[in-house]
Amino acid sequence: MTTLDGGARPTRVPEWLRQRAALTPDRIALIGGDEAPTFAALDAQADAAAGRLASAGVGRGDRVALLAANSLDFVRAVHAVGRRGAVLLPLNVRLTPAELAWQLADAGARLLVFDAANADAARALAATDHGLRLLPLAELTARDGAAAGSEGDREGMIDLAAVHSIIYTSGTTGRPKGVLLTYGNYLWSAVGSALNLGLAADDRWLACLPLFHVGGLSILLRGVIYGATVEVHAAFDAAAANRAIDGGVTLLSVVSTMLERMLEERAERDYPASLRCVLVGGGPVPPHLLEWATARAMPVAQTYGLTEAASQVATLAPAEAASRIGAAGKPLLPTELRVVDGEGRACPAGAPGEIVVRGPTVTPGYLNAPEETARALREGWLHTGDIGYLDAAGYLYVLDRRDDLIVSGGENVYPAEVEAALEAHPAVREAAVFGRADRRWGQAVSAVVVLREGGAVTAAALSAFCRERLAAFKVPTRFEFDGPLPRTAAGKLARHQVRERWAAGSALTPPRTRVRAGRGPPLARPAPRRPRLPPPP
Amino acid sequence: MTTLDGGARPTRVPEWLRQRAALTPDRIALIGGDEAPTFAALDAQADAAAGRLASAGVGRGDRVALLAANSLDFVRAVHAVGRRGAVLLPLNVRLTPAELAWQLADAGARLLVFDAANADAARALAATDHGLRLLPLAELTARDGAAAGSEGDREGMIDLAAVHSIIYTSGTTGRPKGVLLTYGNYLWSAVGSALNLGLAADDRWLACLPLFHVGGLSILLRGVIYGATVEVHAAFDAAAANRAIDGGVTLLSVVSTMLERMLEERAERDYPASLRCVLVGGGPVPPHLLEWATARAMPVAQTYGLTEAASQVATLAPAEAASRIGAAGKPLLPTELRVVDGEGRACPAGAPGEIVVRGPTVTPGYLNAPEETARALREGWLHTGDIGYLDAAGYLYVLDRRDDLIVSGGENVYPAEVEAALEAHPAVREAAVFGRADRRWGQAVSAVVVLREGGAVTAAALSAFCRERLAAFKVPTRFEFDGPLPRTAAGKLARHQVRERWAAGSALTPPRTRVRAGRGPPLARPAPRRPRLPPPP
Repeated sequence: MTTLDGGARPTRVPEWLRQRAALTPDRIALIGGDEAPTFAALDAQADAAAGRLASAGVGRGDRVALLAANSLDFVRAVHAVGRRGAVLLPLNVRLTPAELAWQLADAGARLLVFDAANADAARALAATDHGLRLLPLAELTARDGAAAGSEGDREGMIDLAAVHSIIYTSGTTGRPKGVLLTYGNYLWSAVGSALNLGLAADDRWLACLPLFHVGGLSILLRGVIYGATVEVHAAFDAAAANRAIDGGVTLLSVVSTMLERMLEERAERDYPASLRCVLVGGGPVPPHLLEWATARAMPVAQTYGLTEAASQVATLAPAEAASRIGAAGKPLLPTELRVVDGEGRACPAGAPGEIVVRGPTVTPGYLNAPEETARALREGWLHTGDIGYLDAAGYLYVLDRRDDLIVSGGENVYPAEVEAALEAHPAVREAAVFGRADRRWGQAVSAVVVLREGGAVTAAALSAFCRERLAAFKVPTRFEFDGPLPRTAAGKLARHQVRERWAAGSALTPPRTRVRAGRGPPLARPAPRRPRLPPPP
Repeated sequence: MTTLDGGARPTRVPEWLRQRAALTPDRIALIGGDEAPTFAALDAQADAAAGRLASAGVGRGDRVALLAANSLDFVRAVHAVGRRGAVLLPLNVRLTPAELAWQLADAGARLLVFDAANADAARALAATDHGLRLLPLAELTARDGAAAGSEGDREGMIDLAAVHSIIYTSGTTGRPKGVLLTYGNYLWSAVGSALNLGLAADDRWLACLPLFHVGGLSILLRGVIYGATVEVHAAFDAAAANRAIDGGVTLLSVVSTMLERMLEERAERDYPASLRCVLVGGGPVPPHLLEWATARAMPVAQTYGLTEAASQVATLAPAEAASRIGAAGKPLLPTELRVVDGEGRACPAGAPGEIVVRGPTVTPGYLNAPEETARALREGWLHTGDIGYLDAAGYLYVLDRRDDLIVSGGENVYPAEVEAALEAHPAVREAAVFGRADRRWGQAVSAVVVLREGGAVTAAALSAFCRERLAAFKVPTRFEFDGPLPRTAAGKLARHQVRERWAAGSALTPPRTRVRAGRGPPLARPAPRRPRLPPPP
């Protein structure tokens, strides 16, 4: 009790939603559809839903999968799962049944909560996994007054080291890994973000990113921690997002392609002064977009983050956006960030290396994957695989996501996973997948396919074959039938050479963003450049 | 690494000042005298001072005492001690040499840093403790360029469970106890406060409370965590505080008596809209003062806190001040607060009981005092000894500080300590000390003295006798020669009976604050009531 030297003591805090409902019961917690529950109402709704989870046999440590689009019921389900002491497994609704089945099995989920739009997928999953029970989201969150109160943790305390959710990311091997994110990871992320962006009593966050991604889910938790209203959109719609900003939204998170669509839709009208900050993540933001946003009085903050660090790692304050174009800013207060060479030594300013991150927002590891965990986490440092450099003033510039990662419209695509799908086709001997620069989506998925002797297949047929196995956003939009594929001495695919050879003409990655030294003059309003690209795959 | 169940893992974050200097190097960290160092400058100054501490042999875990009035050098010393991994022992400059010697010995301090005003006291202490080395504050923080860089923790990480400082509070037994406060205690307090009061990029805190108290020290640490400017005043001066607010101070902490003097000095002028919040702690605030402040457009937030919880426990948001007069608000987000009866059961709404507190702002215990620690901390709950109640909406009303505590002008006075001093006089057989309601100071110290047979001493002589042994603010301002003293069957002083008998006519404690239900109409501007009382003892 009276040691001076510190050490490991569990940190416990009151359960966020319960405490928030006690502190500011009458504040609006959520806005969505025609509903706007207060924190007191949300707390009662979470209690009712937790009672139904209890009736369904969900207890402490059980994993509850959630397959649903954005809605207020999604939020209620998240809080109900936490209140039962269970662990949330949010599923990407764009995945195929096979992809979903793999995650459900790996996480050991016994209950799948699903919304109406995903009912067929849910039933198909239950048909092949007889241990998996189903619970319609509407039933979980019904407000018929019949539900018993929660049998959950009456003490209402959270151990910050306990796991809140498991979010799958694909990996370099093509096998998705379940990132464990603790209550502490989310809380420290929320605290670090607030210390950077500030906190105002009338803050309202717009959640228009998918809530099953860390970028969306963390908004929900920030809302409860801050006591801020969260407006939930069923899906991203540029006009609706712009209207929400005019209606009082002060903060939102988007990816580049969403930002562009909002600016297009906005046309000539400036954004209101009440808009405090637009966080733009999910890959580098083209400079012309930053300039365009500035011309429309939209305060943009570029951010670099990843699932393994509960979203934000570094964020450029809006006031610096104009003078540090292309930078992802500086780390959050609780976060350490370094750029290291192959031997783990810090790189000098300006020299690129691997971005490594340490601090209380970093995952304790991957589920059921001790080797991957040991590889990613060394002495507490998360090795992101992403390449960047720090300038002399300590600003991070992200040059390239991890060697093989493709970021398309904010979704991560791992080539190995797509290559494995292609190579499952009987006509395909081998395949290499890479990202091609794309003005609208950041990167588009491209494939080089080497056919077997005597094999024959069209691009259209391969695309259809992939669609059965992969989420649509992972399916290549361009196929080259060519070969042979360059390999290293050890037989590994030489990805850099693949891109150099087949991405000819189009840049390997989004163009390196320009660095402006010092604080230049205000940016001139750019001529809108809006190529009319076809809709995403 | 992949447990789902939580548990104890040490939480480490980058050292605040180092990280803050990296994040916002050019922001003004401190204002005081004619200096206004940036965070980068303060960081370099702390490094230089830490180098001097290293030369003086200070290493990890050593306790460094600091005997100094408020100044920027005080702040530099605080950060230098932390950077060496040493533990800060801030000393109350109003204490007598004997009181200081006791704390130095109990804490095992080997180095005493002192400012010019306290040089005589420091030398006297060193003369009686030959193991105590002295280091003038001006020498520690000199900017002559000769100091080596810090040999401190190059990794620059903080373990949140490590002790940052030891702050002594007197106890019911009269023996002061060293409250251990960890880095985590201060960080969680800062986070909890920001989640309540909000955070703005242009926030400026005024530190006009003594920095050796938790109320002042925590402002310094909040400044670094938030990246907010802290303006340091050498001592409280109502006119200077008002000028600072006109000059851009947005937040400050005061006690009632300071608030009253500021309002007196302000006369008819309203406070500017830039003033976000005035936290008023250190005991109940008389309703007429709250009304007066409201009439002057000063947003006041009553707060309840104590050293053992790193300052704030509960705070009433300024927006609610008018509708909840007398309330100390609701707990900070990371803090649990209950009111319990003698068996530890939660009291119903409106029923008074002991205020107990749990959460990451609560001290791990008292130094060298396992029994007192075990008594105060039970299952994580800090038993404050203070009496209050929660209303049906969960607002805390503090009725009475712990049974025997006198709060006079924001300083805590423990009767047992004063009684022991009185009973050391050869003419005194026994003494009882209690607080008498006082409009200006909240409470004034009063004594009932029973003389020995044949003993004779005047009030003036007893006052002089006390002054040699006790800080001036502890010396009774009124003596009653009377007796016998009421005692319980076990022979303990019956303090309630003492107060009932000898405090007759003057209220026992500050009048119970009125509770207004609901949100009443805006308060009418009160007629200023400003009794001209003599200056404090």
